[in-house]
Amino acid sequence: MTASRARRRPGRPAGGSRSRESILRAARASFATNGYDRTTIRAVAASARVDPALVHHYFGTKDRLFVAAMEFPIDPAVVAETVLGEGLDRAGERLVRLFLTIWETPGNREPLLGLVRSAVTNPRAARMLREFMTRALLSRIAPALGRKDAELRVALVGSQVVGLAILRYVIRVEPLASATEDELVAAVGPRFQDYLTADLAAAPGRQST
Amino acid sequence: MTASRARRRPGRPAGGSRSRESILRAARASFATNGYDRTTIRAVAASARVDPALVHHYFGTKDRLFVAAMEFPIDPAVVAETVLGEGLDRAGERLVRLFLTIWETPGNREPLLGLVRSAVTNPRAARMLREFMTRALLSRIAPALGRKDAELRVALVGSQVVGLAILRYVIRVEPLASATEDELVAAVGPRFQDYLTADLAAAPGRQST
Repeated sequence: MTASRARRRPGRPAGGSRSRESILRAARASFATNGYDRTTIRAVAASARVDPALVHHYFGTKDRLFVAAMEFPIDPAVVAETVLGEGLDRAGERLVRLFLTIWETPGNREPLLGLVRSAVTNPRAARMLREFMTRALLSRIAPALGRKDAELRVALVGSQVVGLAILRYVIRVEPLASATEDELVAAVGPRFQDYLTADLAAAPGRQST
Repeated sequence: MTASRARRRPGRPAGGSRSRESILRAARASFATNGYDRTTIRAVAASARVDPALVHHYFGTKDRLFVAAMEFPIDPAVVAETVLGEGLDRAGERLVRLFLTIWETPGNREPLLGLVRSAVTNPRAARMLREFMTRALLSRIAPALGRKDAELRVALVGSQVVGLAILRYVIRVEPLASATEDELVAAVGPRFQDYLTADLAAAPGRQST
């Protein structure tokens, strides 16, 4: 038993794919134990017994490492590009389509649901997701809105995304569960757009006097 | 051991509060095993060894029984009255305030979080919550909107409520977690109002050409 365990324990990895696996294993352990903020590429490299340059070579940045380690099928860079790449006009609509594409792609749903389940049942997972959302999504998208309350706006979009995922894919409330992509884009896109760009204090035409 | 168990097993209850407790215990078991739709007041009464009239006397309707059994601090009748009681004008704003009042009231948050946790981790709990949402909330509020897509609209409001609860109270993403009630009413109220009353296919001023 002991001998077999010792054989399986990774030493300095020889091949590239073994190094990559060691890095992912070390990253998963560090994100879970220390959270997102306190995990460093240097510490993950040390724990995986590789050079930090190799972690950068495989994964680039800490948020990419997180995405890979958590098998999280949302790349913050892609989300930011979707929201901001063509300007803010119709960004709400593009965001709904991106969200639906991600969730409807086979193989994506389970890791996402796993993260949601962990985050609502485990305070450490909640902190990890909170820090990741804050550093990788909010701080990347919010500045482009050019508003004092930009982070609240992006967080509100995030809350609608999470609630939609839970009611559509987990609790499966009808007719939300079987609504078409176009129905959801039409219904939710303008709400996202308003969160991103409308005057939140007094939305035009919504106030009664 | 056997004798002690037999002593604790409820027979035909003598006092009112013992009957009430027996009914709640039987209801919890039935909702968990059979879901919301297939639970009947008659079956709960039989399992609690009381007359169905006594269940009606204590709890009135099945949704009230569910609310009591699950210690669920949201009474669908109150939600419907809030949305519809003063007409649809500013209903979105009233809904955000009601939602915040419910979640900020001491003692409410834990049972609500318990239900969310169960629903995302346990398919039977998800079904129970889905059926309760559908029968007690959607079917009560949707007809008053007088629109073909009313149920989708109410479900979308529900999805924003659930997402807001998770990001604000569970994952605690800032600045959402510490936003004031007024900030959230201003930001989310008009979105709820649009879900309830706006033309979803082409929200005015949101389309680019």
